[in-house]
Amino acid sequence: MEEKLEKSRIDRQFDFIREIDKEKFITRQTFLSDAKRRENDAEHAWHMAIMTLLLSEYANEEIDVLRVISMLLIHDLVEIDAGDTYAYDEEGKQTQRVREVKAADRIYGILPEDQGKKLRALWEEFEEAETPEAKFAHVMDNVQPAMLNAHTEGKDWIAKGVRLSQILERNAHTAEGSQKLWDYAYTNFIEPNVKTGKIKDDTK
Amino acid sequence: MEEKLEKSRIDRQFDFIREIDKEKFITRQTFLSDAKRRENDAEHAWHMAIMTLLLSEYANEEIDVLRVISMLLIHDLVEIDAGDTYAYDEEGKQTQRVREVKAADRIYGILPEDQGKKLRALWEEFEEAETPEAKFAHVMDNVQPAMLNAHTEGKDWIAKGVRLSQILERNAHTAEGSQKLWDYAYTNFIEPNVKTGKIKDDTK
Repeated sequence: MEEKLEKSRIDRQFDFIREIDKEKFITRQTFLSDAKRRENDAEHAWHMAIMTLLLSEYANEEIDVLRVISMLLIHDLVEIDAGDTYAYDEEGKQTQRVREVKAADRIYGILPEDQGKKLRALWEEFEEAETPEAKFAHVMDNVQPAMLNAHTEGKDWIAKGVRLSQILERNAHTAEGSQKLWDYAYTNFIEPNVKTGKIKDDTK
Repeated sequence: MEEKLEKSRIDRQFDFIREIDKEKFITRQTFLSDAKRRENDAEHAWHMAIMTLLLSEYANEEIDVLRVISMLLIHDLVEIDAGDTYAYDEEGKQTQRVREVKAADRIYGILPEDQGKKLRALWEEFEEAETPEAKFAHVMDNVQPAMLNAHTEGKDWIAKGVRLSQILERNAHTAEGSQKLWDYAYTNFIEPNVKTGKIKDDTK
């Protein structure tokens, strides 16, 4: 007869903490500032969390900084199972939600129920992109890779043949989180690379 | 005649945000959970920030979670210039403070003055390890690598011939931040590896 032992709260917390180490193995498309290797999800989340500390003053609406940072820290954990879906991978995006919900069930299910529910709700809030915090988190999620792409002379934009219309579509709501940061990113990261042809202008 | 143009606030913020991308190139000694490669500072900070979200309930004293997370996110930025000083590198530790203060001057100096001062004060608070927040941040900074070392069957402890007395010295104040987490880490991560000889017991 098998004995069922209920794991302790702290054991479940450390099971989760060990499990999420795998986010460090999930590679994104963006190149780091040395243009030598691509960024992983954990590095990306860390970078955006610090950006939030510094740039929250530009949010259109008042935001709870801890809430935004928490959201950004955990928002890609589902990719441990579901993988990174590239922003302009139209085929991948069709199955993304189904793959990510299944991942969320498993990964957040490792935690004690109260904490699993809380983190999962934060992820859903990010996905829905309706609260001021989620809107600002999406500004970070769009501006950070644009900044690195611009810094690496458009290496990933060129590699993928990214078109301006794709960038504008992805950023359709960025200004809702922060008009100031969207204007800055457009002027400093996107426009100069359209002019030099590193981003293909298909909008004319 | 050279014209001196004062950089705008947002330009300085993005200069800093680009600069800190280099933290992703600073390698620590700890192996990731797959035991294949060593962790970098950005991944380490991300991991500890999430740990803080989940484990703050075990702090001995009440802590401001955003303050701890902010501290952990930025506490290794000085290593961009000063490099990672291994916990048991006694020679390196003698020059560590001088190297890191010089790094802090340069790196935090990139930011607008108010934000540079604020982040630098957070780093100093971490270094002094006196506030409840700084004490808890040090718990994270000690428990996270112990957890990964235990998970990788002591790979780095064995490689370095780490002795129990070194670990105990490094953790002399860990229980001041969280008795519960120190007890858990000792029982689950350290003690079993002393028993199997992966950590050399030199305390008898």
